[in-house]
Parts: sequence; C-alpha cells; structure tokens
Amino acid sequence: MLNRIDHVGIAVANLELAIERYCDTFGLAAVAVETNTEQGVREAMLELGAGSMAPASYVQLLEPLADDTPVGRFLARRGEGLHHVGYAVQDVSLELESLMQQGIELIDQRPRHGSMGASIAFLHPRGLHGVLTELVQAARS
Amino acid sequence: MLNRIDHVGIAVANLELAIERYCDTFGLAAVAVETNTEQGVREAMLELGAGSMAPASYVQLLEPLADDTPVGRFLARRGEGLHHVGYAVQDVSLELESLMQQGIELIDQRPRHGSMGASIAFLHPRGLHGVLTELVQAARS
Repeated sequence: MLNRIDHVGIAVANLELAIERYCDTFGLAAVAVETNTEQGVREAMLELGAGSMAPASYVQLLEPLADDTPVGRFLARRGEGLHHVGYAVQDVSLELESLMQQGIELIDQRPRHGSMGASIAFLHPRGLHGVLTELVQAARS
Repeated sequence: MLNRIDHVGIAVANLELAIERYCDTFGLAAVAVETNTEQGVREAMLELGAGSMAPASYVQLLEPLADDTPVGRFLARRGEGLHHVGYAVQDVSLELESLMQQGIELIDQRPRHGSMGASIAFLHPRGLHGVLTELVQAARS
C-alpha cells in the first residue's frame, strides 16, 4: 500500500534559516512555502531529484505558528529534528479504511488537506513504534 | 546532490515485533536482515514500491546490540521513533568532499559500509537542524 517515501517532516525553530541551510548545503530549491493554520505550521517543501524521471521526494521544513501547536510542543520537548515521515499512496481514503479494519490507531479518520494540494492523513505513533506517520495522496497534476 | 529519500531509520526495542507490525500493517516485506557490529545494530530493510519501475525506498528498522551504542542511547533518551534519514547520492566520496569544503560537520570523514552493500556516511545533526543525516551510495546491482 505504501508506494515510496514522499517526504520527511523536520521541525525547525526558524523556517528561513532552515531553508537557507538545506538549500545551500544540498543544492535544493523550495518549490512551495505555505501556511497551514489547521496544522499550526508554516512550511516549505524542498524538492529532491528535480528533473529526474522518477517521482520527486521532499524535505518538508515545519515552523510552528505558536507554542501551543503540535510542532510547537514537539520543539519544546525535543528540540529541532525529525518530526514525521510521509509515504505516498494511491488512494488515502481506501488506505484509511483498510487500516481501520486492522485496528491501527489513526489520528485522522478521514483525509484532510496537506501540502501542495495533497490529500493526507496522519496515523498515531503509538501503533507504529513511535513514528508519527502520514499518508500522502498527491494532487493530480 | 541528493537524488531522493533512500530510507528512514527507526529505532525499535525489538526488531522481530517491529518487522511484524510494519509488514502486516503496510504489506511490506523485509528484503534484508543484517547485523552491523560497527554501528551496534541489528537491522531490517523493508522495501517500499517493490515491483515498480522507480528506485525502491526503504523503512529501516534498527535494534541496538547493547545499551551503550548510539541507537541504545537514543532509545534510552527518547524511546522508539525516527532516528535518521538516508538520502540517495551518486558518489558519496565526492559529496563528502564538497560538504567538507562547505564546512558542514561530518560524523564520517570517509565512506563506510552500510546496509545491502551500500557505501554510506553520516553527517552530524548539529549542522542540519537536529537531523542525523546519512548519504547512501547504493551497491552496483
């Protein structure tokens, strides 16, 4: 059901500094910078493998909009670092259905809006050895 | 320089339980289970996108061989969860050279042996917003 790793989400204190560091160091470019008030973040998607035939994957940098947001609390508890992993799937609703039937603990019972028009859903880290896990169905291009 | 996300490394307390959970939940298969005494881990590589034309990416599950190993200390400090991210590169030696010239803090000055015959090198989380980062040059198939 998981096609590939779509992105890693990295919690950072200052989005601009993090974009600069990652783009300079690894020769990446930010293809989207968005504010997602529902998730309480300002975020940037840095594309890997731009120009290749294979589907892109991304480094997603996440700055919390406030301290009392999930990413804000993560930063306070652990500091900057890996926050979650996102896997590409064909149909996020179908996958949620199947995971629910398996009794896997979900954060989102139904898809919501993610970066760059994607439909996404988060699974709870409790059932997945401590890993906050996101399913990503890319927007049709 | 980074072609795509090759894998996410997940620190787990019990490798067999974690393999079972990830394979059952997401329909994955372990394509390699190895002991890496140099890194102090027993690890499994679970392949994503098996059978597709695109290059595979992996969930890497890591169980420490002892408490006084890097992954053992990570588990004691943070519990199970995301430990590092690995990016695919064409030539790890060349990338290390370039990163050294940029003044990026490395853990490995030169490549060492990684999973499935790869040449790998770790970069220090300090320079990369808290993310332990691995460069992976796959073995020639």
